[in-house]
Amino acid sequence: MEDGFLTPLYAIIQATTDSMSELRQDPTTREWVIIAPERANRPHQAPRKKRDEELPEWDASCPFCPGNEAQTPTEVFRIPISSEASAWEVRVVPNQFAALTPEGDITRREDGRFVRKMGGFGEHEVIIETPSHNTPMALLTYEQVKKVLIAYQQRYNALKENRQLKFITIFKNYGWASGTSLPHSHSQLVATPIITPYYHRRFNVAVDYYADMSRCLCCELLTDELGKGRRIIAETKEFVALHPYASRVPYETWIIPKKHYSSFGLFPATHLAELATVLKDILFCLHRGLNNPAFNLMVDTAITEDEENPYYHWRIRIMPRLTTIAGFEMGSGIYINTALPEETAKFMRQLASSCTEDE
Amino acid sequence: MEDGFLTPLYAIIQATTDSMSELRQDPTTREWVIIAPERANRPHQAPRKKRDEELPEWDASCPFCPGNEAQTPTEVFRIPISSEASAWEVRVVPNQFAALTPEGDITRREDGRFVRKMGGFGEHEVIIETPSHNTPMALLTYEQVKKVLIAYQQRYNALKENRQLKFITIFKNYGWASGTSLPHSHSQLVATPIITPYYHRRFNVAVDYYADMSRCLCCELLTDELGKGRRIIAETKEFVALHPYASRVPYETWIIPKKHYSSFGLFPATHLAELATVLKDILFCLHRGLNNPAFNLMVDTAITEDEENPYYHWRIRIMPRLTTIAGFEMGSGIYINTALPEETAKFMRQLASSCTEDE
Repeated sequence: MEDGFLTPLYAIIQATTDSMSELRQDPTTREWVIIAPERANRPHQAPRKKRDEELPEWDASCPFCPGNEAQTPTEVFRIPISSEASAWEVRVVPNQFAALTPEGDITRREDGRFVRKMGGFGEHEVIIETPSHNTPMALLTYEQVKKVLIAYQQRYNALKENRQLKFITIFKNYGWASGTSLPHSHSQLVATPIITPYYHRRFNVAVDYYADMSRCLCCELLTDELGKGRRIIAETKEFVALHPYASRVPYETWIIPKKHYSSFGLFPATHLAELATVLKDILFCLHRGLNNPAFNLMVDTAITEDEENPYYHWRIRIMPRLTTIAGFEMGSGIYINTALPEETAKFMRQLASSCTEDE
Repeated sequence: MEDGFLTPLYAIIQATTDSMSELRQDPTTREWVIIAPERANRPHQAPRKKRDEELPEWDASCPFCPGNEAQTPTEVFRIPISSEASAWEVRVVPNQFAALTPEGDITRREDGRFVRKMGGFGEHEVIIETPSHNTPMALLTYEQVKKVLIAYQQRYNALKENRQLKFITIFKNYGWASGTSLPHSHSQLVATPIITPYYHRRFNVAVDYYADMSRCLCCELLTDELGKGRRIIAETKEFVALHPYASRVPYETWIIPKKHYSSFGLFPATHLAELATVLKDILFCLHRGLNNPAFNLMVDTAITEDEENPYYHWRIRIMPRLTTIAGFEMGSGIYINTALPEETAKFMRQLASSCTEDE
């Protein structure tokens, strides 16, 4: 195991730990944490200092490369290449170093007088976006990005059949600064039995607005932003992409469906091709204009038990990792953003009109 | 300006921006963000890849080194060395690249129908912890750490005299992974006119517990943790240090006063020497046992308008940066911690009994 990150002594502690993961609630915030000692053993294919090195098209040691399928747990979904029986374009497998597993005990227990815990019950899957070891999502074809989004939605909808999985987070870590441990382009999906204060906060704000105005806050906000135009970076028939008014980091980007849908799971699959073009164009411009930045991508969506409501409006959120979350953010909850979203949006519009792929 | 972090094109955008900072509220979360384009121009004394290089005792280009006092804004506080008129042990200056300034307009304005903003009003100070360029806080003497804590409290209490400053965050970023931009050991203090949802959440949980039990949640939790003992790493007459039950990162550490005080500002200064020994011992063990890790340190304290209440209990929180906050944390609010706090606490107790300074 190559690892440029954890210290030797720290690694020793990890090696002695073989307990299952568990979910614990902080009594002072009611937030939940996943304690998953097993994940400390996961492979890191390259330490962060190697981020700028050229990757090969295929890597014999990469569990996500074609031919190495036996290195992953049993596949749960694939988009095959029709002409070749054993070949695939997208593949979904359980995460070998899962933060949560279906074996976890879902019973919530008081652990003494003050704290609450439960077993690490849940699902944790990896979506391998392409057979190519060295093609980032930004450089995939529109057609391939569409297939990735189809996999996102198919797996989301498959997992929600288990009614104990309340909240499903689809996300992608790209580049070492984003927290990824393997360079082969992939996304992840974690389904949890808990609904977090983090979600409640967004939901409650939307409910309060609806109670006052009888309209969806996000629908109204979209209309307002389209009227102003300054923070819009793309608009298509079904989607708007913008840099939000209170962007927390430079180039924070939201892709929002124009029509009201609470859940990504219930969003018409017929629009995923259009979403793929919007997403790919944005990632490509970031890649070209900001010199291949690290980023996190999240699908913010309603809980599985309440997928059709008039309040919550699903969206994709992209957070480039050009700066580091530091003590002030951790101590106050306030982000310091060093760029005006009106200016970064303008720059993205310029990029969109000028940068095209060479091929 | 040396900068290993921002890309060239990104830097160009920054250079064209000369607007003052402002505070903006996200309508979908009611959280506030500081938009501070000026801060993009701040110096980075070394890119992150140089983190392991040896630092000199004194650096002619460092604005925090003795002799370079003219490179900082006008000093607001110092602890002098009594024997030498011009020498100092701790120095506090306004941050030259302040996120917030006293010139900001405090009027809250609706910026269209949905969003709210105000000028970037506030204070942002730097606490230079030692004249030595290459001594981290972990290696300062007990006496010097006490002086740093005195500076924390003195500046906190000086700033709260301005009743428009509601919330004061004292924090420290150590090591490149923590988000720091200068290696000379320093802390920071940011005073804001806003109280964030982040604080409200913690406060409300404490109020709810008090409403039910007529006791402080944190006082009760401390008694319970001391009874169990497994997560305690140090106990003195006035303080308990522990790894919390739902630690969000490996080696997250809380230092909590045993007696109930809501505000760090009103905590008896006579106990700061004891706090310095607890803090220094912990930082030294982390430094020695985990190979000098990056960390963030925050003082969590009540708002300035409500410093004496039976609910909130101030504490110091240390968050080592051994892992990276990634997309799952950003999309769900749930942290994945790869270490059990019971095991890390045990390791810290072992370290505390074995590691001593060589000098």
